[in-house]
Amino acid sequence: MSKRVPYQLVSRSWKPEPTTFTVNGVEIGKELMMIAGPCAVENEEQIFTITEFLSKLNIKFLRGGAYKPRTSPYSFQGLKSEGLKLMRRAADKFGMAVVTEIMSIDKIDELVQYADILQVGTRNMQNYPLLRALGKINKPVLLKRGMSNTIEEWLLAAEYILSGGNSKIILCERGIRTFETATRNTLDISAVPIAKSLSHLPIIIDPSQGTGARDMIIPMSRAGIAAGADGLIIEVHNQPEEALSDGDQSLYLDQFQEMLDPLSKMANVLNKSFDFQAVVSPIENN
Amino acid sequence: MSKRVPYQLVSRSWKPEPTTFTVNGVEIGKELMMIAGPCAVENEEQIFTITEFLSKLNIKFLRGGAYKPRTSPYSFQGLKSEGLKLMRRAADKFGMAVVTEIMSIDKIDELVQYADILQVGTRNMQNYPLLRALGKINKPVLLKRGMSNTIEEWLLAAEYILSGGNSKIILCERGIRTFETATRNTLDISAVPIAKSLSHLPIIIDPSQGTGARDMIIPMSRAGIAAGADGLIIEVHNQPEEALSDGDQSLYLDQFQEMLDPLSKMANVLNKSFDFQAVVSPIENN
Amino acid sequence: MSKRVPYQLVSRSWKPEPTTFTVNGVEIGKELMMIAGPCAVENEEQIFTITEFLSKLNIKFLRGGAYKPRTSPYSFQGLKSEGLKLMRRAADKFGMAVVTEIMSIDKIDELVQYADILQVGTRNMQNYPLLRALGKINKPVLLKRGMSNTIEEWLLAAEYILSGGNSKIILCERGIRTFETATRNTLDISAVPIAKSLSHLPIIIDPSQGTGARDMIIPMSRAGIAAGADGLIIEVHNQPEEALSDGDQSLYLDQFQEMLDPLSKMANVLNKSFDFQAVVSPIENN
Amino acid sequence: MSKRVPYQLVSRSWKPEPTTFTVNGVEIGKELMMIAGPCAVENEEQIFTITEFLSKLNIKFLRGGAYKPRTSPYSFQGLKSEGLKLMRRAADKFGMAVVTEIMSIDKIDELVQYADILQVGTRNMQNYPLLRALGKINKPVLLKRGMSNTIEEWLLAAEYILSGGNSKIILCERGIRTFETATRNTLDISAVPIAKSLSHLPIIIDPSQGTGARDMIIPMSRAGIAAGADGLIIEVHNQPEEALSDGDQSLYLDQFQEMLDPLSKMANVLNKSFDFQAVVSPIENN
Repeated sequence: MSKRVPYQLVSRSWKPEPTTFTVNGVEIGKELMMIAGPCAVENEEQIFTITEFLSKLNIKFLRGGAYKPRTSPYSFQGLKSEGLKLMRRAADKFGMAVVTEIMSIDKIDELVQYADILQVGTRNMQNYPLLRALGKINKPVLLKRGMSNTIEEWLLAAEYILSGGNSKIILCERGIRTFETATRNTLDISAVPIAKSLSHLPIIIDPSQGTGARDMIIPMSRAGIAAGADGLIIEVHNQPEEALSDGDQSLYLDQFQEMLDPLSKMANVLNKSFDFQAVVSPIENN
Repeated sequence: MSKRVPYQLVSRSWKPEPTTFTVNGVEIGKELMMIAGPCAVENEEQIFTITEFLSKLNIKFLRGGAYKPRTSPYSFQGLKSEGLKLMRRAADKFGMAVVTEIMSIDKIDELVQYADILQVGTRNMQNYPLLRALGKINKPVLLKRGMSNTIEEWLLAAEYILSGGNSKIILCERGIRTFETATRNTLDISAVPIAKSLSHLPIIIDPSQGTGARDMIIPMSRAGIAAGADGLIIEVHNQPEEALSDGDQSLYLDQFQEMLDPLSKMANVLNKSFDFQAVVSPIENN
Repeated sequence: MSKRVPYQLVSRSWKPEPTTFTVNGVEIGKELMMIAGPCAVENEEQIFTITEFLSKLNIKFLRGGAYKPRTSPYSFQGLKSEGLKLMRRAADKFGMAVVTEIMSIDKIDELVQYADILQVGTRNMQNYPLLRALGKINKPVLLKRGMSNTIEEWLLAAEYILSGGNSKIILCERGIRTFETATRNTLDISAVPIAKSLSHLPIIIDPSQGTGARDMIIPMSRAGIAAGADGLIIEVHNQPEEALSDGDQSLYLDQFQEMLDPLSKMANVLNKSFDFQAVVSPIENN
Repeated sequence: MSKRVPYQLVSRSWKPEPTTFTVNGVEIGKELMMIAGPCAVENEEQIFTITEFLSKLNIKFLRGGAYKPRTSPYSFQGLKSEGLKLMRRAADKFGMAVVTEIMSIDKIDELVQYADILQVGTRNMQNYPLLRALGKINKPVLLKRGMSNTIEEWLLAAEYILSGGNSKIILCERGIRTFETATRNTLDISAVPIAKSLSHLPIIIDPSQGTGARDMIIPMSRAGIAAGADGLIIEVHNQPEEALSDGDQSLYLDQFQEMLDPLSKMANVLNKSFDFQAVVSPIENN
C-alpha cells in the first residue's frame, strides 16, 4: 500500500483502539458476531422456520434480502416492503436483530424502521450519495467490499460514512473477482489482517457469497476466524434446493448447527468466543 | 460466453439492425461521434475557452463533470448545479450538446433539464434503482462499463434501462481492472467487437479514463476506431497541469486538434467518417 | 509504472533509436511483418497447402508448432522433429522463413537448425535458464508476454536475452488473463504504445491466441496496427474445423486473404506498409 | 469448475484415499508438515545458525534457495552448487531434510544428490519438459501454483508428473495475482478446500511468498491450517533486514518460535498435530 494515507477517521493511526458497539446484546468488535439467514425472504413459513431454528442456537442476527440487487432485471427482485415486515415480525418473535440490504437513498426511511443493521452490497460500495446519506443515520452499517475494489478504496468508502457522523460500521469481505473459475469469487482472507492493521473498524467475512459453494463455507469460516475476523455472515436455508436465489451457496440447517461447535473451539484458542457456544451442545445431544 | 442469453431487448438476435438516434445533428450509431471536454467543469473561463475551441473544430458533444464521484470524500466533488449551468450556457453559445454524469435518482430532474446525454459512470453500472429510473426518461444514456464487470453484466445493465422503455443507449468501454500497473486501467479494445456482435447498441471508447496517461490517448483512440467503435470520449483541458482532477490524462488543446486529421483518414478507410474532418485542415494551415 | 527502471539494455533511454534487423528480406521493426500459419504442423499435405497459399500472398513468415506446450499431458503434443522437418521443407520450397516455439534448452540445437525465428511462449516467459541460453544464439527470438505478466516483467525477460548478447528480439503481446469470460484472453492493445515508449524493441500482436475467437481476429488485427504494432502473428488453417488444436481461433484461408487489403490501406494511413499489399489485389481480381 | 475432468491420476475420483508418504520421519498428507528457512542460502554462518535454531524446535524440513529465479538478470541469483552443499551439510548436522528449487532439467542430477524434496516454483508450473523429467525421479516434488493459474491448470501440471510415474507430490498455494496492491500477492486460502475436494494430493500453503509482508504470515498461517492445509512453508531469517532477498517477508527467529504454540493448539482442535509442539514449551521457558 502506498505510504500516503488518503483516509483519516477510518485509520488506526487516528484511533488506535478498536471500535466496538452493541447490537442486540452483542458487543460487536469485541465478541464474535454470527449473522445467519436466507439469501432472500421468500414467504412467512420460510422466514419463521429459519428464524426459530437460529434463535434456538442463540444466534442473535438474522440476515435476509427484501430489496435484492440482481444482475438481470428479469430475476426475482425480492419481496420488498412485504419481505421487510415479515423479517421484522420473525425477528421480534424470536429475539433477533435484522440485517438487510439498502440499495437507494429513497428507501432509507423504510429500512431504518424495520432493520437493525443496514447492509451496503458489493455493487454499491462506491455509490457515494448513498454512503453520504448513511453517514447521517443512527443505525450501524455493514459495508461490503466491492468485488473488485482495493482495500484502500474500501476504507475510503467507510470514510464517506464516518465523515458524515456515523461511526458504527462493520466491514465485510465477501470475495473478490479473479481469473479463477472454480469458485464464484475468491474470498480474500488476507483482507482481514490488512484491514485490521489499517483500521479500527470491526471486520467480518461472508463465506457464502465469497465462494458460491456450499462445501466451502465451513472451511472458509474457520479460516476467516483464524485470521482474526470479528464474525461471519452465512446463508442458511431450510430448503436450499428450492430457494429462489443462491440455493447452491446456502447451508442446510443441520450443516449450520454442526459447524458451530468446532468453530467455537477454534475461537477459544484465539481467546475469542461465540455467544452461541453454550447452546449448541444440548441440541447436539437431542 | 455461456450459450444462454439472459438478456433480450439488448441482444442483436432480438433486433438485428444497429440502433441509431440523432443528437445535435449527429446520427449516433451510424456516424462516428466525438465527445470532448474537461474532466470537471471548474469555472466559467475554463469551460468557455474549451468549448469555443472545440466548436471551431466542429466537435458536437461537450463532456464535463458537475457531480463527480470521487474515491475520497475529501477530493474535489464538482461544482454541482453551478457547473451544470455553466456547461449549458457554454454549450448553447457554441452549438454543442452536453454530456454529464448522473449519480443518483434525486438528481435526474435537474440533469434532464441541463444535459443532452446522461452518463452513468463505472461505479454505478450496477446501481439498479438508478438504471430503472433512467429507463423512464426521454434522454439518451451513455452507459460506462463497470471497471470489473463482464460484458454480459454490462449488457444486462443496459437491459435494465431498455426494459423500462428507453432505448437510446450508448455503451462506453472505459478500461478494466487488471494486474498491470503501468496504466491506471487496461482499455479493453476487444470489448468493441464483442459488444457489436452481441448487441445492436452503439459503443464508444474512453481512452482517457481507460489508460490514465496522456501519451496513450492517441494510439488507443486509433485502435478503438480501427476495432469498429462508434466514437470516442476524450478529456481535453486548456491547462492540464492545473486541472482540479485528472490533468495527467487530459490532452492539451493543440494535441487534440492534431489527432483529428489522421483519425479521420483512418475512419475513411473503414468507410466511416467524423464530422470534424473538413474543419481540421484549414486550421492546420494557419 | 514505478520510476525506477530495473532494466537497462532493453530500455529506450539506453538506446533511443528503434531496433531493426532483417529476416527473409523484411526489415523487422521498420516494415510491418506478417507471420501466418497453423497452430500446429499436422501432416505434409496440411503444411504444404497452407504454405503455398501464404506464399502466393507474398507472406514471408510461416508459423507452426512442432513442440507444443499443452495444459494436459494427454493432448496432442506436436509432431516434434518430424514437424520441424516438414515445416522447413515447405518453407524452403515457397521462400518463407520459419517461426516456431522453443520449450527447453536441450532442443535449442535442433531448433536453430530448422527455424529462422525461435518463439518463447507465454508459459516460458520467466523460464530464465532458457532465456539465458537464447542470449547466446545467433537467431532472432520472438518473446511472448506471459499471460499474467506485467510489462515491466516482460521487458526484464527480454533483458535476460539481451544481456547474454542477442539483441534480435521481437516482443509479442498475446492476451492477458482477466476476469472476462467472453474471450479466452483479453488482448492488451495498450501494451503496444507502452512497450514502444519504454523500449526500442519491435512489438507485434497475436490476435488469434489473444482472443481465442475467429470473429475477433480481423478487428483486433486492425486495432493492433492502428496502435502502432510492428506486425501480426495469425493462425490460419485450410480446414479449421478439423485442426488438431485451436481450430476455433484459426482463420479460413479466404478470410485471411480478404483481411489483407483493408489492413494495408490502414497501414498506409499510418505511413507503414505491409509487403503483401501489391500481391493481394490481383488475387482479388480472380 | 467445468464438469469435464481433464485430469485422471491426480483426481480424487480416481483415488479416493489421501496420498501420504514419509520424509524424514513425517508422514506427509497425514501429519502437518512445517518447512522453514531462509529465502536464499547466503553463507555458512547464516544457514547453520538458522538450521540449528529450527532443529531445536523439532522442525524437520529446511527450505533455502540455491538456484534462484529472479525477475531481473542483475539481482542475486543464488550461490548455486555452493549453496546446495552448504544446505546439505547444515541439514545433515541437525537432522533436517532439504527442500530447494529446481529450475531446469540439466540441474536435476545435482539437485537429486543434495535435496530431499525438489520444489517447482511459480514461474515453472507450466514448464512441461521439466515436469515430465520430474515424473521420472524418485524424490518428492513440491509443486507451487503458478501465480495466475487456475486450480485446474495446477492439477494438470501435477498430472504431468504423476503420469511419468512419480506420485510423491505436494501441492503448494503461494498467492495469486489480483488487482489488489496492498499485498504482493493474494494468498488464495480457498484453494485448499478446492484442491482437497478435487485431488488426493497433500496441499500446503506459503504465507511468506503469498503475502510478501511479515505481519501477515502468522494470521495467514492460522487461516491456512484452519482451512485444512497439510502444512506450511515459511521464510525465516536470523537477520531479515540484511537478507539478500525477500527480507521483508521473513520472520525473525523469535517470531517464528512464538507462532508455533497457538498454531499447535489450533491444529489440535482440528484433530491434526504438528510434530514441533512438545518442543516449543521448554524453549519458551528459557
